[in-house]
Amino acid sequence: MQYIAPLANLIEHFRALPGIGQKTAVRLAYHVLDMDPAQARALASAIIDAKEKIGYCNTCFNLSDQNPCAICASDERDHSVICVVEQPQDVAAMERMRDYQGVYHVLHGALSPLEGIGPSDIRIKELLGRLQDDTVKEVIMATNPNVEGEATTMYIAKLLKPLGIKVTRIAHGLPIGGDLEYADEVTLAKAMENRREI
Amino acid sequence: MQYIAPLANLIEHFRALPGIGQKTAVRLAYHVLDMDPAQARALASAIIDAKEKIGYCNTCFNLSDQNPCAICASDERDHSVICVVEQPQDVAAMERMRDYQGVYHVLHGALSPLEGIGPSDIRIKELLGRLQDDTVKEVIMATNPNVEGEATTMYIAKLLKPLGIKVTRIAHGLPIGGDLEYADEVTLAKAMENRREI
Repeated sequence: MQYIAPLANLIEHFRALPGIGQKTAVRLAYHVLDMDPAQARALASAIIDAKEKIGYCNTCFNLSDQNPCAICASDERDHSVICVVEQPQDVAAMERMRDYQGVYHVLHGALSPLEGIGPSDIRIKELLGRLQDDTVKEVIMATNPNVEGEATTMYIAKLLKPLGIKVTRIAHGLPIGGDLEYADEVTLAKAMENRREI
Repeated sequence: MQYIAPLANLIEHFRALPGIGQKTAVRLAYHVLDMDPAQARALASAIIDAKEKIGYCNTCFNLSDQNPCAICASDERDHSVICVVEQPQDVAAMERMRDYQGVYHVLHGALSPLEGIGPSDIRIKELLGRLQDDTVKEVIMATNPNVEGEATTMYIAKLLKPLGIKVTRIAHGLPIGGDLEYADEVTLAKAMENRREI
């Protein structure tokens, strides 16, 4: 009797989303009931649309509504540099920087023996496929700075060495605007290790 | 270029929900893209369904998918007691208690001169309508314990006095399981004022 069926169903669906607990799900569901019908329909079709219109670019495997994606198809991007990331979200983060002019390759995961994710489970083969002609001069590894990301970077670097392609890794250290006092030990150790003469 | 159009659109829609910021909206949108299509369609139709199937009960104005609502239609509820609340959410909170056997009346707001909400903007007239025959013996005011809620309670109590109906107010005081140390002054003052001999 607490919630009527369609409301309980909506709450359940919201609760299944990541980071949404019972209270937030209830709040969201009541908000939907307060929306005007056109707004609610727009929200529903935004979900359907995103799901139906977005697929993966067959070149870089980033999310895209066209194939190849806008970045891979662009003449203004430098196709001799590939930045390798774990997830489509990471491409969005790099693009926010507005500084990188090369193209991307999305692995869709990182090597993790513990979770049973091996080289054939992520898009490593497809990356190697893109390096067969001589277009690509540099591969920038931008995997996450954790054990899985590091392992993935080392694995790919080893694979690419024989091909004579420059493999680089984005720097790890103190985040700008961060407080040295609050930096964790591993970051601090990396920052010391990677210090440069000024 | 940062987000492709259908994704940007979905993020925008999630951001319009209460308590969802940019980062959460992005996380939710990517989660939707990761869902299987059936799940995404189910989420979308849960939204549409809730919106289309749920309306207001013409008696108590609680949200309902039938009219009168299950509570108003029930023979097991005590129709001589009406609990007056501000929002449908409050009915859900009361029902969670599983203790109250009477029926409800949802005002859909509280009096607030500052926000221009007067007696005709909330369902006070409809409450009076329910008190015309002699069925109702007690009206329990369960508005929120704040200025607007108190004002609404006082206003309605004044209206009902001439009708000879008992009007009560739920108690304000220290929440059970709360810490006296952390109670705010107003709550503590209320708790002292409403102390009872044991």
